[in-house]
Amino acid sequence: MMNDGLQSEQLARTLKRLTEEESASLERLFRLLAIPSISTDPAHHDSCLAAAEWCAASLSEIGFSARVEPTLGKPMVVGHWRAKAKGEARRHVLFYGHYDVQPADPLEEWDTPPFSPRLVEDPRHGMMIVARGASDDKGQVMTFIEACRAWLAEHGTLPVDVSVLLEGEEESGSPSLAPFLATHGDGLKADLALVCDTGQWDEDTPAITAFLRGLAFSEITITGPSRDLHSGLYGGPARNPLQALAEILGRLHDKDGRVAIAGFYDGVRQPSRAEIAAWRTLGFDGASFLGGVGLSAPAGETDYSILEQLWSRPTAEINGIHGGYGGPGTKTVIPSHATAKLSFRLVPGQEPHKVIADWHRFVEERLPEDTSATFAGEGGSPAVGFDTGAPAFQAAARALQSEWGKAPAMIGCGASIPIVESFRSRLGMDVLLIGFALDDDRIHAPNEKYNLRSFTKGARSWVRILAELGAMHDVTA
Amino acid sequence: MMNDGLQSEQLARTLKRLTEEESASLERLFRLLAIPSISTDPAHHDSCLAAAEWCAASLSEIGFSARVEPTLGKPMVVGHWRAKAKGEARRHVLFYGHYDVQPADPLEEWDTPPFSPRLVEDPRHGMMIVARGASDDKGQVMTFIEACRAWLAEHGTLPVDVSVLLEGEEESGSPSLAPFLATHGDGLKADLALVCDTGQWDEDTPAITAFLRGLAFSEITITGPSRDLHSGLYGGPARNPLQALAEILGRLHDKDGRVAIAGFYDGVRQPSRAEIAAWRTLGFDGASFLGGVGLSAPAGETDYSILEQLWSRPTAEINGIHGGYGGPGTKTVIPSHATAKLSFRLVPGQEPHKVIADWHRFVEERLPEDTSATFAGEGGSPAVGFDTGAPAFQAAARALQSEWGKAPAMIGCGASIPIVESFRSRLGMDVLLIGFALDDDRIHAPNEKYNLRSFTKGARSWVRILAELGAMHDVTA
Repeated sequence: MMNDGLQSEQLARTLKRLTEEESASLERLFRLLAIPSISTDPAHHDSCLAAAEWCAASLSEIGFSARVEPTLGKPMVVGHWRAKAKGEARRHVLFYGHYDVQPADPLEEWDTPPFSPRLVEDPRHGMMIVARGASDDKGQVMTFIEACRAWLAEHGTLPVDVSVLLEGEEESGSPSLAPFLATHGDGLKADLALVCDTGQWDEDTPAITAFLRGLAFSEITITGPSRDLHSGLYGGPARNPLQALAEILGRLHDKDGRVAIAGFYDGVRQPSRAEIAAWRTLGFDGASFLGGVGLSAPAGETDYSILEQLWSRPTAEINGIHGGYGGPGTKTVIPSHATAKLSFRLVPGQEPHKVIADWHRFVEERLPEDTSATFAGEGGSPAVGFDTGAPAFQAAARALQSEWGKAPAMIGCGASIPIVESFRSRLGMDVLLIGFALDDDRIHAPNEKYNLRSFTKGARSWVRILAELGAMHDVTA
Repeated sequence: MMNDGLQSEQLARTLKRLTEEESASLERLFRLLAIPSISTDPAHHDSCLAAAEWCAASLSEIGFSARVEPTLGKPMVVGHWRAKAKGEARRHVLFYGHYDVQPADPLEEWDTPPFSPRLVEDPRHGMMIVARGASDDKGQVMTFIEACRAWLAEHGTLPVDVSVLLEGEEESGSPSLAPFLATHGDGLKADLALVCDTGQWDEDTPAITAFLRGLAFSEITITGPSRDLHSGLYGGPARNPLQALAEILGRLHDKDGRVAIAGFYDGVRQPSRAEIAAWRTLGFDGASFLGGVGLSAPAGETDYSILEQLWSRPTAEINGIHGGYGGPGTKTVIPSHATAKLSFRLVPGQEPHKVIADWHRFVEERLPEDTSATFAGEGGSPAVGFDTGAPAFQAAARALQSEWGKAPAMIGCGASIPIVESFRSRLGMDVLLIGFALDDDRIHAPNEKYNLRSFTKGARSWVRILAELGAMHDVTA
């Protein structure tokens, strides 16, 4: 192990190198941003291949063993850098990002062409990098690659062994990722995964996303009469499956916003009191969050704050109901059947299959006479909640605090990020979700931007995180 | 007024005449049935005109002043027969039927061509007239015209003054009927309307339909967030309009099947105890009625029989719900809005506009925070309930009892028949709904039939009804 003084001197030299390289780093990022690698559009297939080749060449250039791995869709970029000396057990991390981008339309709403990246001065943010993919995810990916470049250029080595996996289908549903992990997972398994596709809490507060809700989903069809009926000739004595569906779904929540399915909250594990207390100090602007989508009052469980409702509480949501007549005018029909799609956001301790089973029982106990229920299209994945006190989290937190002068917020995310669950369940790795995007980066929208400060301080953050991870005494994170 | 002996001799001679004419009557009916007057199919427009001309010519032939009246759609056939002697106040009836028929497809399911009428022997029904329109409504119309023909041929007069209105768009929504009544109603107004487009209770029991439910309808849209939301990023704190809609519609009925809208039952008038007691003696087979559509238990108000639920109790039915995602697979969306279509079957004493207003209040009192409701496509028409003790009803009942040896069932119908409400509200007439169709006549289906007995005894019934109406002392029914 290196001593502390040597470590801090190495770190300072690497950060200085990064500063000296800034304009060259930016040039490299601009070259990647100029490739219109829109994965969802077949017309841009060659651009996706070009972006993959460019990334692999960049990794090779700085000393990685890198290659483009074909899949049935867009290829994966895989790179490895391992220390030559074999004796010592070294920490090994796997970095994940994606080189594909969202489509750029509506093109006419861009102030400058989406694949002609440029620096734009902004009164609030200072210099901004404007291009499709500037923030999601090419700018973020390059913070990490530039951090590795600086370490390798300055010292010829990295503080930890590093593998890189860059996907080209993140914006189009990642169809090739699971098959690729199934066949190539062994070569990617590391002690810890680093994912750079999330954001900061705000422009001065870095964040580690440590809680992600899981998901279970189900489609229910309730059948009553054997055919559609005329509501005049049958209305009254005939059972209406739309009514049965409304009666069941209308009792899915109690008056306090709790999900009324028996057993739904069994085993639910919540973040620690300290973590929740920390969320409460974040200064989250709930009025602005809800007001931005035309709402004013939190609709979830009354005992929980908006952030808790979003990050740490499970939900039952109706995503669609379709049954009976939906065309213009009136049709006095009692339909034979009616369908609803539901999804449940899960928190740690809930198992998707148990939630689905409890939901079935909830329905079956409430089905009126002469109706039956069938379920289809079911599945899901559990929530992820990392122990933010674990050594790797604390190491990353120290690094972020050094760079930003402020402890990172250990935040949650209401949505699942499938790669996290895949890394955890398929490869048995914990995942550090660290990114430098801001809420106003306009990802997936015209005039996407990444603050120059996000880019430079993001790369500096990774330089420090790699150092802290390398300095950890226990290689089991 | 004629004396009773003379009346009964005149009646006997008319009935005898009808019997002697039977094969000629049938030939005339077959000529009408051979015209493929499918109103909904533009290819058969000329056939509709031919059927109208044929009906007008028939009425002229027997002594009516008849004409074909153009409309924007298919023409109306209008005929009048009035006694020459002016002094005495004579009862005047308006007969309504329709000369158009349903399409005949699927043609391959007909045993014989639909517009080649023929007599077919059946083990249960005896001889049956098989053709499209045999029962609905050409056979029924011809029972009345043949009854008039027999009276006029035998006596040169009718017991009452008679107007006839035959429509050619009953099977395609009657678009021209309301405008026609608005402009020609004065010339059609009579003391009483006779409508021959309904059925008997069973093959041995005639019926008068005296109760028809009304209708009110409404479409509700509940709006929550200003745009569709991602259920991961917003689920929990964000209000879901599908959930709000389910909660409101799921409470539309109480546990006893009663409609839970405050004021909904205000002013409801029910048939008399004697009428309801009479329904209970009809031997209605509820198990078979429900079993035919895959149901086993009546779903309406628990205190009422199936026939009461159908004929004399109001309902609230959801006819459609549409909101959120309905395509294949899963979309974890919280939609901005969700829509339902409802209809209410009404009974006498309920006003459509009050029911709609009560429904609005029901919704508004239950709308959760951050949602709003808009209503569209609303309208309706009140129920009709005739006083079955009124002289014209009793006169018709006596006539039917004489012919069938059994008192007619005074029945209800769960559906509205728009012409009845139009005659009542626009022309101020009570309506006698009497027809000789049977439930197994396969109307609107292949191999439609009308029993020869329905045709002959139907005509005899009208001969007797005209006599009884003519013998009434008070011309105000």
